[in-house]
Amino acid sequence: MSGGPFRFEVAATDGAARRGRLHTTHGTVDTPAFMPVGTAATVKAMTPDAVRETGAQIVLGNTYHLMLRPGAERIERLGGLHRFMNWAGPILTDSGGFQVMSLTDLRKLDEDGVTFRSHVDGSYHRLTPERSVEIQRCLDADITMAFDECTRFPCTEEEAASSMRLSMRWAARCREAFVERPGYGLFGIVQGSVFPDLRRESAEALIAIGFDGYAVGGLAVGEGQEAMFSTLDATVPALPDDRPRYLMGVGKPSDIVGSVLRGIDMFDCVLPTRSGRTGQAWTWGGPVNLRNARHADDPRPLDPECRCPACRDFSRAYLHHLTRAGEILGVMLLTWHNLTFYQDLMRSLRKAITDGTVHNLAAALAEREAKGDIEPL
Amino acid sequence: MSGGPFRFEVAATDGAARRGRLHTTHGTVDTPAFMPVGTAATVKAMTPDAVRETGAQIVLGNTYHLMLRPGAERIERLGGLHRFMNWAGPILTDSGGFQVMSLTDLRKLDEDGVTFRSHVDGSYHRLTPERSVEIQRCLDADITMAFDECTRFPCTEEEAASSMRLSMRWAARCREAFVERPGYGLFGIVQGSVFPDLRRESAEALIAIGFDGYAVGGLAVGEGQEAMFSTLDATVPALPDDRPRYLMGVGKPSDIVGSVLRGIDMFDCVLPTRSGRTGQAWTWGGPVNLRNARHADDPRPLDPECRCPACRDFSRAYLHHLTRAGEILGVMLLTWHNLTFYQDLMRSLRKAITDGTVHNLAAALAEREAKGDIEPL
Repeated sequence: MSGGPFRFEVAATDGAARRGRLHTTHGTVDTPAFMPVGTAATVKAMTPDAVRETGAQIVLGNTYHLMLRPGAERIERLGGLHRFMNWAGPILTDSGGFQVMSLTDLRKLDEDGVTFRSHVDGSYHRLTPERSVEIQRCLDADITMAFDECTRFPCTEEEAASSMRLSMRWAARCREAFVERPGYGLFGIVQGSVFPDLRRESAEALIAIGFDGYAVGGLAVGEGQEAMFSTLDATVPALPDDRPRYLMGVGKPSDIVGSVLRGIDMFDCVLPTRSGRTGQAWTWGGPVNLRNARHADDPRPLDPECRCPACRDFSRAYLHHLTRAGEILGVMLLTWHNLTFYQDLMRSLRKAITDGTVHNLAAALAEREAKGDIEPL
Repeated sequence: MSGGPFRFEVAATDGAARRGRLHTTHGTVDTPAFMPVGTAATVKAMTPDAVRETGAQIVLGNTYHLMLRPGAERIERLGGLHRFMNWAGPILTDSGGFQVMSLTDLRKLDEDGVTFRSHVDGSYHRLTPERSVEIQRCLDADITMAFDECTRFPCTEEEAASSMRLSMRWAARCREAFVERPGYGLFGIVQGSVFPDLRRESAEALIAIGFDGYAVGGLAVGEGQEAMFSTLDATVPALPDDRPRYLMGVGKPSDIVGSVLRGIDMFDCVLPTRSGRTGQAWTWGGPVNLRNARHADDPRPLDPECRCPACRDFSRAYLHHLTRAGEILGVMLLTWHNLTFYQDLMRSLRKAITDGTVHNLAAALAEREAKGDIEPL
């Protein structure tokens, strides 16, 4: 552990896109960064060594899942989440808000917080801004996220305003509850659905409270890429230049590229890991469905440009076989590949920003994805 | 590939126990050896690199599963099973007999072979001694197993005799069909259930045909350890000293130790891999059920004497959490541990045979397992 201050520096810009470095207690993160999701203290089907080999520098943990099983205080007694899951690098934890809000029929919201029933055993639990921050401290998260209400989509402007303003009051309580420690940071979350004025109001409210980073929440909930990008266009300019910007729960490669062009620094998404469990691979030639029969006799690697074990050691025919047979090794290899692809994508974006060529890269990626030059045989 | 002859040498003996070396096209196997089961061209939940790291030198593939999916001729076109699954070392394939015979309601046996329906898609297939040997050649198996009828248990002596004699006629047809290649071998399988006279008759019949190794089949089917050991006592002395002896489908650590003491050189069993998928670990202190609540707060490693990643990098509390949460990483780590334990057990047995201390080791292992000095807390 470095023990230095929590610090973000912008090393290069290319238009609105930024190449930066985020310094935390458990290490440095090069941005734009993609954070693999480790919901239940594991990036599904990956050892932490393998996660590191993909190039990931930071992972995400879920407060909701971990508070229910194995329990935040248990993880604290066992030395914190890093030690529990054997991940030495930085960890960002979400606040539990997003998961709790999605338990539509199992939760009750009031000004103070939310009461909900566990999906594991039906037991009752309560989350407030203070408790969410406390849990994230038990987990020893390098980055704590403010507890917010993730506004449902679609909603009226009035509903979005009311929900956002509740989240802003909660954000102030999170700031109050957060115990400052060197190298640890607290991020606020901009809400306001797809309404530009509300997004700006939310950003201003958070800046007035003061956070170590600013997340954009409430997107990737069904609004579509165009609405997501236009919301970013309205939101990002309202955020301070000297703090990291994190777009929560995003996304497909083209979502990430477009958001980097708009000044986003950090991402997380279950897509690469979840796709790996359903036979779907993300490659430099576009998405590939390994369940498709045309791969059955194909001796070529999944992606000739990829350095991961799935592409280095095996054929498409073998990956197809594993996927069809429901073998765990198929899940392991495709998850490994997808996370490697995502990290290589981020590395390419970082390099292009430094080189001042990020718009060229974005155009080339869009063209390749449309052309699908690996598919079909 | 060495290209040398298929060859077995006994390097040391300790009572009936033997320390040997088996040379095949794809490499050398130190015996007594345990072969992890790679049913569908994958040792479940393990990369081939990880299998190798456990110390395994040879793996087993299943003719029945591979002929149905992805198909023997497809694997041949893709360069054979070694290349398909990226396992460079020796491979033994079973004949398909055991699996087909267990499809009680889906198969029809005649003198020539057996017709059966696929469990994958219900399609009809036929296996004969000649076709089984041909499939194993397509797979490029270093060791081909003769196609036999695995006699059901319990059965009368008459049924056992009739079944065994059919297997002996099939064994002669397998020998005839097997295409000799340097470094490749064909094993016969002794049958005869728990009847010593039939076992001896079967061994003599196989020796008259002449094989590169001799397996003991039809055990570990419910007869119990005592009957298994007494059958070995009747069978092993009837087998030639200069050929490897393979006890099929065995077994628990104590089964393996007792069988090594009786002169068995090779083993395979799904137990370490299957146990890994159900939260059961085999350790130097006896079996451990990771689902048990007493592990929930235990910061100690699963087995302090083990060098595997599960024991090196994680606590019992974490493995308990993964197992309870149904996480794939739990399956991966416990499988890795169990296969490491089995390989370490074989290494200990090989060393003890060389040192002339195998009976001491066997007694110490039995005492530790009974004492369970790791369990409970």
